[in-house]
Amino acid sequence: MVDVQNRRDGRMITLDEAGIRDLLYPVTILDRERDRQRTVARISMSVELPHHFKGTHMSRFMEVLGRHDRDFDGRTIPAILEELKRVLDARSARMTMEFPYFMEKRAPVTGAAARMDYRCRFQGASGPGGEDFVLTVSVPVSSLCPCSREISSYGAHNQRGSITMEVRSIAGGDGLPSMVWIEELVSVAESSASSPVYGLLKRPDEKFVTESSYDNPVFVEDMARNASVQLMSDPRIIWFRVTAESLESIHNHTAYAVYEWSRKDG
Amino acid sequence: MVDVQNRRDGRMITLDEAGIRDLLYPVTILDRERDRQRTVARISMSVELPHHFKGTHMSRFMEVLGRHDRDFDGRTIPAILEELKRVLDARSARMTMEFPYFMEKRAPVTGAAARMDYRCRFQGASGPGGEDFVLTVSVPVSSLCPCSREISSYGAHNQRGSITMEVRSIAGGDGLPSMVWIEELVSVAESSASSPVYGLLKRPDEKFVTESSYDNPVFVEDMARNASVQLMSDPRIIWFRVTAESLESIHNHTAYAVYEWSRKDG
Amino acid sequence: MVDVQNRRDGRMITLDEAGIRDLLYPVTILDRERDRQRTVARISMSVELPHHFKGTHMSRFMEVLGRHDRDFDGRTIPAILEELKRVLDARSARMTMEFPYFMEKRAPVTGAAARMDYRCRFQGASGPGGEDFVLTVSVPVSSLCPCSREISSYGAHNQRGSITMEVRSIAGGDGLPSMVWIEELVSVAESSASSPVYGLLKRPDEKFVTESSYDNPVFVEDMARNASVQLMSDPRIIWFRVTAESLESIHNHTAYAVYEWSRKDG
Amino acid sequence: MVDVQNRRDGRMITLDEAGIRDLLYPVTILDRERDRQRTVARISMSVELPHHFKGTHMSRFMEVLGRHDRDFDGRTIPAILEELKRVLDARSARMTMEFPYFMEKRAPVTGAAARMDYRCRFQGASGPGGEDFVLTVSVPVSSLCPCSREISSYGAHNQRGSITMEVRSIAGGDGLPSMVWIEELVSVAESSASSPVYGLLKRPDEKFVTESSYDNPVFVEDMARNASVQLMSDPRIIWFRVTAESLESIHNHTAYAVYEWSRKDG
Repeated sequence: MVDVQNRRDGRMITLDEAGIRDLLYPVTILDRERDRQRTVARISMSVELPHHFKGTHMSRFMEVLGRHDRDFDGRTIPAILEELKRVLDARSARMTMEFPYFMEKRAPVTGAAARMDYRCRFQGASGPGGEDFVLTVSVPVSSLCPCSREISSYGAHNQRGSITMEVRSIAGGDGLPSMVWIEELVSVAESSASSPVYGLLKRPDEKFVTESSYDNPVFVEDMARNASVQLMSDPRIIWFRVTAESLESIHNHTAYAVYEWSRKDG
Repeated sequence: MVDVQNRRDGRMITLDEAGIRDLLYPVTILDRERDRQRTVARISMSVELPHHFKGTHMSRFMEVLGRHDRDFDGRTIPAILEELKRVLDARSARMTMEFPYFMEKRAPVTGAAARMDYRCRFQGASGPGGEDFVLTVSVPVSSLCPCSREISSYGAHNQRGSITMEVRSIAGGDGLPSMVWIEELVSVAESSASSPVYGLLKRPDEKFVTESSYDNPVFVEDMARNASVQLMSDPRIIWFRVTAESLESIHNHTAYAVYEWSRKDG
Repeated sequence: MVDVQNRRDGRMITLDEAGIRDLLYPVTILDRERDRQRTVARISMSVELPHHFKGTHMSRFMEVLGRHDRDFDGRTIPAILEELKRVLDARSARMTMEFPYFMEKRAPVTGAAARMDYRCRFQGASGPGGEDFVLTVSVPVSSLCPCSREISSYGAHNQRGSITMEVRSIAGGDGLPSMVWIEELVSVAESSASSPVYGLLKRPDEKFVTESSYDNPVFVEDMARNASVQLMSDPRIIWFRVTAESLESIHNHTAYAVYEWSRKDG
Repeated sequence: MVDVQNRRDGRMITLDEAGIRDLLYPVTILDRERDRQRTVARISMSVELPHHFKGTHMSRFMEVLGRHDRDFDGRTIPAILEELKRVLDARSARMTMEFPYFMEKRAPVTGAAARMDYRCRFQGASGPGGEDFVLTVSVPVSSLCPCSREISSYGAHNQRGSITMEVRSIAGGDGLPSMVWIEELVSVAESSASSPVYGLLKRPDEKFVTESSYDNPVFVEDMARNASVQLMSDPRIIWFRVTAESLESIHNHTAYAVYEWSRKDG
């Protein structure tokens, strides 16, 4: 059969990305506590399309994914990107996968355990300019308003919010990026808010969370700065963007703060 | 041209609904304060399809809507349903429209005004069994946990939540349903929670909202019951379902409660 | 500590449901081909709350789930519902879980294999009136318009759509519901449309799918009726609702059809 | 009352953005045909927060918006940004509004008219580096696969898709950006696909759309390139990013292509 995609194109436009999106797929992710965990990812994959080709061969994305669909560790996305470049005759390739990641979390007093989900994303790219990898982790937290606490005779409004960290880290000694674990970013976020949130709290835990939130009031701006200070002090991290959000309990809109940072080398 | 839809169908299945969905459309809604307001609705329309027709004529839904797309008052949906039945030769027709409805809300101390959005839905049906109309209003509110307040030495977790009321009301003296205003249901919900939420609060308002929430703790179960008690006492209302939700500030999941009720006549 | 939830409530309202919602959770589902598969579910759980209790104990839902979070087979949801009724002192309980289910699907000519996702839902309830279970499967399909094909000199508009089947089935000989497999409902839907959709198609497959769609034109009404005829002929099925949708390629809205059916025994 | 937000902060972090998000609001937009149209926008507003301030005054965003909430023309967002910088004592400010925009579209043969919605976004920023404005318009279209058409004996798979254009344009002679109308970008997109999509088509229109789609097959890559060629040739446009998507009718995932371009001056 004719290969229409391989035909010449005369518009002289090299597309930055041509690929597939919104593909749901079961994946296995490295898990610091339990070795591996299975979850479901929303995947996109693309390649650069040179100006002289009319189209890319979309079916090959699925073929490459099918050959790698088991465990995703630090080497899997680079390997997929190399293979995409080869089978699609492309200079550069990209892949994004978004997935819920589960951790067992213990209640602060009783130690009762329950699963919590954290929204994560891996974004990899490979091209003439080198490799790139961004890890994103979004952590639900609780924030208690410092202003409300200070001006009120009793009580203080608080609410669910989130701290989302997008992070690039440097290459370690063995030539691979030194790994920043999802678990580490969860810990950064939880210590930057008024309190972590939990899957399961018994009454002594609820008392503890209520009082410790009241003792640690933060604006959404504080959450962004607290997380940023921690990420800047981590020598592995060379770039990040922190977005803190607060689902205001006194409004029907969200308050948010963003801080983006790059390490200046010296 | 041939009319494929009008062909005979032999499967002997009368479809309950055949129509269109997920249509965005600008509409004008009756507004108790300001006469009329313009907003945007997500619309679905359908008719029953007799077993002997192969298909309905989907383009006629748009034609009928186009002839009515100005003001939606209490007579508009019945008129559209009548016209759908006529032009599509159907025994029954249905229409749903979901839209944000805006009210100007004043802060409780300073009186500062700002717009707030409330998610609403009109669902109409007309068939051999008569007419039906359900008004749904979803109201964002604030809830403060009675348990957290009682067991904690200070503070209490609170959060944004919502109270959604689906309501059928009786025919008034002039043969038309006596109208329950969106504004009335907003008021029912806000008085059933720890506090209303607002578009704009200055510091004296924030102090007031914080303290009055602390003074009015409610479980999500209380919110459902408080709204239900009010709706039952309204003689116009013959059926309702109340769903209260609380975006727990100490968890990453939602707590909810549901109560459905029908008036027993006497 | 005081148990606020256990306090007496005087509003005389027995809530139909009090529970939790929007909980993401990793689960394992029975898989006809591969024994078991791991996926991620969105879960809700609730109990009836008697009028004399002020609130339910929300943390117990997580505790019960935590004791069952491994494999979900036909006995798991009934067991969870029994335990919920016991630990929460309730007459009835409900549980819903929605999840993507993955099947390996082979291209029709080359046999190339790739994963496809199908949206599924288990809804269980247990109360004084007995047990209830509804299986829902939503299957992406392709539809080609009979009218467009007939009136046009060449070509025919076609598009992605879906067929969603909600199904109740009867108790089998061993006292348990005779199981309707997700795989069986996928097969019903795919044979009711112009063509299945696939994760991966090579060119000979694409030619086959294009031509076989053209040979099997269906309205969205046909898809609903075709699936309904098949479900009615399955003696295990006692109730169903079929919803067919078509993401019209010539419009920016969706066409849909619904048919609900109950077996009249004799 | 104390002003907690105005307190000194010692973390030395100037936040890029501090503000509010996910605010639904009724707005009025300039309309080339009908002067003005009312719709509903999802709004975000933020300011840079200097490192020495603990927090911004979130209520002032609503106050500023409330003073401008009537007509949004080319001067409204710059005026809001100036006011935000002033009342919040900030060096820079940003505002984004996303909204459905409605146009009356006529069927190609019968001329039957119906409303169509187009997803639009205004993004404005003002700071020490100057002003910025990006107009985004997302247009639903229909695409017919050239490969499917060529390799199949009859028929060709086609589907709904979209072309999204993000555009920056130059300052016109009067010191203001020369306006690119939403209507112009809709026209660019529709002429880059196999066919426009319509709100309402009668049978002669459906025949026309079916045949003209078959006569104009495009890959998703072609749609991105066709729109890009048109945007590059418009001297007002200095930067754009085009994203074409196709809701593949033979798959359960989306195909897409992206092209970003900047005018090189000289």
